[in-house]
Amino acid sequence: MLADQQILRIPGPTPIPPSVQRAMAQPMIGHRGQSTSDLLARIRPKLKRVFGTEQEVIILTGSGTAGLETAVVNAVAPGEEVLVIVTGAFGDRFVKICKAYQIPTHVLQVEWGKALDPELVKVFLQEHPGITAVFSTYCETSTGVLNPIQQLAAAIKEVSEALVIVDGVSCVGGVETKMDGWGIDILVTGSQKAFMLPAGLSFVAASERAWRKIEANPQPRFYLDLKSHRNNLEKNTTPFTPALSILFGLEQALELMEEEGLEEVYSRHTLMMKMTRAAFAAHGIPLLTAEADASPTVTAVKPADFDAEAFRKVMKAEFGISMAGGQQQLTGQIFRIGHMGYCSAADVLQIVSAIEIGLMKIGKMIELGKGTGAAQQVYLDERVGQQ
Amino acid sequence: MLADQQILRIPGPTPIPPSVQRAMAQPMIGHRGQSTSDLLARIRPKLKRVFGTEQEVIILTGSGTAGLETAVVNAVAPGEEVLVIVTGAFGDRFVKICKAYQIPTHVLQVEWGKALDPELVKVFLQEHPGITAVFSTYCETSTGVLNPIQQLAAAIKEVSEALVIVDGVSCVGGVETKMDGWGIDILVTGSQKAFMLPAGLSFVAASERAWRKIEANPQPRFYLDLKSHRNNLEKNTTPFTPALSILFGLEQALELMEEEGLEEVYSRHTLMMKMTRAAFAAHGIPLLTAEADASPTVTAVKPADFDAEAFRKVMKAEFGISMAGGQQQLTGQIFRIGHMGYCSAADVLQIVSAIEIGLMKIGKMIELGKGTGAAQQVYLDERVGQQ
Repeated sequence: MLADQQILRIPGPTPIPPSVQRAMAQPMIGHRGQSTSDLLARIRPKLKRVFGTEQEVIILTGSGTAGLETAVVNAVAPGEEVLVIVTGAFGDRFVKICKAYQIPTHVLQVEWGKALDPELVKVFLQEHPGITAVFSTYCETSTGVLNPIQQLAAAIKEVSEALVIVDGVSCVGGVETKMDGWGIDILVTGSQKAFMLPAGLSFVAASERAWRKIEANPQPRFYLDLKSHRNNLEKNTTPFTPALSILFGLEQALELMEEEGLEEVYSRHTLMMKMTRAAFAAHGIPLLTAEADASPTVTAVKPADFDAEAFRKVMKAEFGISMAGGQQQLTGQIFRIGHMGYCSAADVLQIVSAIEIGLMKIGKMIELGKGTGAAQQVYLDERVGQQ
Repeated sequence: MLADQQILRIPGPTPIPPSVQRAMAQPMIGHRGQSTSDLLARIRPKLKRVFGTEQEVIILTGSGTAGLETAVVNAVAPGEEVLVIVTGAFGDRFVKICKAYQIPTHVLQVEWGKALDPELVKVFLQEHPGITAVFSTYCETSTGVLNPIQQLAAAIKEVSEALVIVDGVSCVGGVETKMDGWGIDILVTGSQKAFMLPAGLSFVAASERAWRKIEANPQPRFYLDLKSHRNNLEKNTTPFTPALSILFGLEQALELMEEEGLEEVYSRHTLMMKMTRAAFAAHGIPLLTAEADASPTVTAVKPADFDAEAFRKVMKAEFGISMAGGQQQLTGQIFRIGHMGYCSAADVLQIVSAIEIGLMKIGKMIELGKGTGAAQQVYLDERVGQQ
């Protein structure tokens, strides 16, 4: 195998574009100087466009989980009860955080691999009028499900005053997100997925209504206090030392997204999802998630007649291709392919064609080229027809 | 198209491995200090292994052409006549250099796309006993031909004392080369091909017999004087300031080649050639070069029913994939795919599957996946059977 080649196709961290890598290699600067202020001033409006919000998008130095905890400690006052909709391992993380803070937590379990049903949430909220916040996951990384957040937010608002809090870690930046337009109250994401950066930054925005709650919330917090972050960011600074290298990279990553065009970024992700799904469908290999519930950023495959873990090992050994396995109850049952961020249709062709060799290698007899051909056909149908 | 993605599949410069890129980003050092001496001491034995020689491999700061001119000015004394075997644009470059020095130059033209025939060279030398040096090209980059250098050297030595001078720019490091074993007198290569580096270094080695000629040669030269380079390199230094960053990278590139194993590097290149050729053969698309004459590092395709230049444009626009066009008399008639250096079977799968989309895009109706399937089958036959 070619030394020094790693083809990273896990659903985050994702590959880093060369120009972002170069940007991150800039010499270090002082975080209290004018250069950092100028950098933050340039980043702020661009981040808002990706979130689809007029609100300030707070930049925390921390990984996605820090962002999720930030949502909890800022939006939930002591004694309040909340609902967490769990569609996979990352929904479950919200439950763990809420429990760590001894928050009375209702859990709505959805079968892993399926999207949540906003109508069921509505019914649950009608039965539990004391709930003040509903936590959900936009893309459930562990299953490749994209939950219908727009419909969820609308359903919640029909019956409740509860805040709509969304973990967008593994899709915001790769999937259209209209925080203001859809009525999301708190939206969280991380740097290491569709933002094409290393892990280390988490982004959190809150609606006006959420800000009122946050300002009045007596829940103790310091590093994760959104108020102090907003007060500072409005003056183009941060309350604590930020991960400056990743900020350098963030500016360039946002630049790349705008250069391509956000609509085109989203359509590329949808194309990659369709190509990936078509390749497996052509061989009759089951996917965990139905087409309607599928995320443009990650695809989970649930093989019926070969071992997911053995297959992942072959792909790594043969081609240096990293794919993710299943988490928690799906361990050993699925493998997951990340196709987000710095990933193109050509990269999907590489993966699906290498996968056909991997399948033969572990003894699953398939017609070579058939899955690749199906992915190619999707590309032609979606892209070439357009022009 | 994904911003900042360039898929470089021209036959040089070739992609640079990340660890080589990092090595080149090391802080600059003085070229007369101990660190540079230590670096050269570590590089020297490794370069010899790639060349297949016990002789010193001189490191020139210059591109491949500087190396070719070095061969000419060191090996040919004023008034001597030489033979250049021209199998393409790079054979032609030797002719231009010899003419610039007003060297009486015989030219043996071989049809572009075909390999030279050692027997014809033997006959030519018998008819022209005054020839003191024979210039040839190992891999002719412009056509994708790998000339039979071992057989050529043997044939020349049967009938002549002429030095065997070989341009190995686009294959040494990717194709087995036994300079000493095969009787090559001067071998030249460059950094930007199978060595996985930027252009800027050229490597030249000479046999004992060539050194005797070089030492006695009154031809004026200064920067390209091999004697001064050898005298310095034996003391782990260089006569002039070397391109130090590329030397940093060279050490790491040689390290990667040894990590993979030279035999495996060569077998990977042969595999990539076979996969690429099989993909086109599956669609009945003609290749410029017959299987027996084909280079493991570059494949030239000569389409019968579509426009090579239009196709290259589509591949660039659609996927950011760069392929090379034809040179000189082959302009517009062929396109060339580089598969050397930092390039893997997975990269070939990417190219051949993207090409199938590109073919459809320019209106050549093919069966999608068929070429990819043929390349996959080659991989399975060559690799998976082995294990």
